Amino acid sequence: MPELDHGVPSEAPPPVPPPLSDVADVPRRTPAEEARTLLAATNVATLATLSDDGGPWGSMVTYAALPDGSPVLCVSQLAEHGRNLARDPRASLVVVDPAPVTDPLSAGRVTLAGAVQRPEGEAREAARAAYLAAVASGRYYIDYTDFSLYVLRVERVRWVGGYGRMSSAEGAEYAVAQPDPIGDARGAVDHLNADHADALLAMAHALGGYPDATSARCTAADRYGLDLVLETPRGTAPARVGFAAPVTEAGGLRAAAVELTRRARASSSSP
Amino acid sequence: MPELDHGVPSEAPPPVPPPLSDVADVPRRTPAEEARTLLAATNVATLATLSDDGGPWGSMVTYAALPDGSPVLCVSQLAEHGRNLARDPRASLVVVDPAPVTDPLSAGRVTLAGAVQRPEGEAREAARAAYLAAVASGRYYIDYTDFSLYVLRVERVRWVGGYGRMSSAEGAEYAVAQPDPIGDARGAVDHLNADHADALLAMAHALGGYPDATSARCTAADRYGLDLVLETPRGTAPARVGFAAPVTEAGGLRAAAVELTRRARASSSSP
Repeated sequence: MPELDHGVPSEAPPPVPPPLSDVADVPRRTPAEEARTLLAATNVATLATLSDDGGPWGSMVTYAALPDGSPVLCVSQLAEHGRNLARDPRASLVVVDPAPVTDPLSAGRVTLAGAVQRPEGEAREAARAAYLAAVASGRYYIDYTDFSLYVLRVERVRWVGGYGRMSSAEGAEYAVAQPDPIGDARGAVDHLNADHADALLAMAHALGGYPDATSARCTAADRYGLDLVLETPRGTAPARVGFAAPVTEAGGLRAAAVELTRRARASSSSP
Repeated sequence: MPELDHGVPSEAPPPVPPPLSDVADVPRRTPAEEARTLLAATNVATLATLSDDGGPWGSMVTYAALPDGSPVLCVSQLAEHGRNLARDPRASLVVVDPAPVTDPLSAGRVTLAGAVQRPEGEAREAARAAYLAAVASGRYYIDYTDFSLYVLRVERVRWVGGYGRMSSAEGAEYAVAQPDPIGDARGAVDHLNADHADALLAMAHALGGYPDATSARCTAADRYGLDLVLETPRGTAPARVGFAAPVTEAGGLRAAAVELTRRARASSSSP
């Protein structure tokens, strides 16, 4: 579903068979939620700062995320990025989904742009505690006199979810969004495909809009539902099925999938 | 071996027992060679460019490396980084060693800073071929009218090999350096430790300067030699043993290690 026109009108995607029954509109994570979820998935990022000649300088950093998603950095003033931040607080931080992918451009990633501040008082204690909790090796250098804590105040968010999935968000939306509590769903997705293909097919039939599906595979799971890819006599089709309520805690995916299966089977067994 | 003083004089490292015999000076990869080796290890990087307000903008990109190490990018003018490069050619590229590490700050990484150019004529064909060879998915978008090829002319290189290992290089050194043909040596290192502990110990005794070593473990291999960590009655010590000649091809490590073993055993069996 490209949102951009690449100027090659001859490249039409293969036709997708439409659903045969009404399908509920299942929400997706907002770009701000995608961004918060990516920030929660790792502690390694690339920082872009301004060198003394005004040129862009990239460097690898570790980070923590505060409760409002603001990244905490701990950098040495002896390093170029530390000198850069001390001179000009403008910065952006790039986080790439650490889940392995075959095609790197299919990976989720986000750029958070804004300006850093040196936290003081209680804010400094909170930033320090967050950094030490997120970066185990931080205790070896956080108290070195040449290291400084910075908090990146996020003004602008650009999320790319892979080919043709991308959107922007403002800092305020980002700050109030929550990371998806499900986090890395690959194990759960593998389990659904390996042991519950029948349940996925029931979901496709009863809730996904494809009563003619002959097989269903789960490709992703998030707090709001499951993404499926279906085979039908009319061709391959994507479908999305939604949980009764968004998952709100780390272990909540299993119960949500069980409820979804129960609902699909109840619906398909009715006349 | 920190090259920087972090201002905490009380933090003295544990004493390292000195070698007991003369040790040959074994070269290490230069910073430029480290940088070229990192560029050859992956095709994913983070690009830093300048946004329209002059702020630093980071984004994930894929790249290829030309024979002189210049990175080739293929970016859409619809994306912020593409608009940025069209406006201001200054850029830097951060490549992080893709080998997994426990502590992210122990990973090798490099920043290449310079300015991009749009290659023309034969240079464009060479850049295009290199990009398509390095990025399999490139064939799906390289001919879209909104995508442009860029070559980053590297002016300045900053390499960080992990804690306390870091150095800079000029673009000219980078251009003539060669990537280490050994590449990812983890499998070979594991094999040496698993099956050739006796050979490593012989190297430590005869060539590494520690005739009192009781065990030896290989921690890294490169075109010039092996890094060892030794246990001795006097404590733990690092050692480095060098190949007779630098390895010049991808499969050359095995023969070099066999020659090194033979030399170590010949030396230790002499009176």
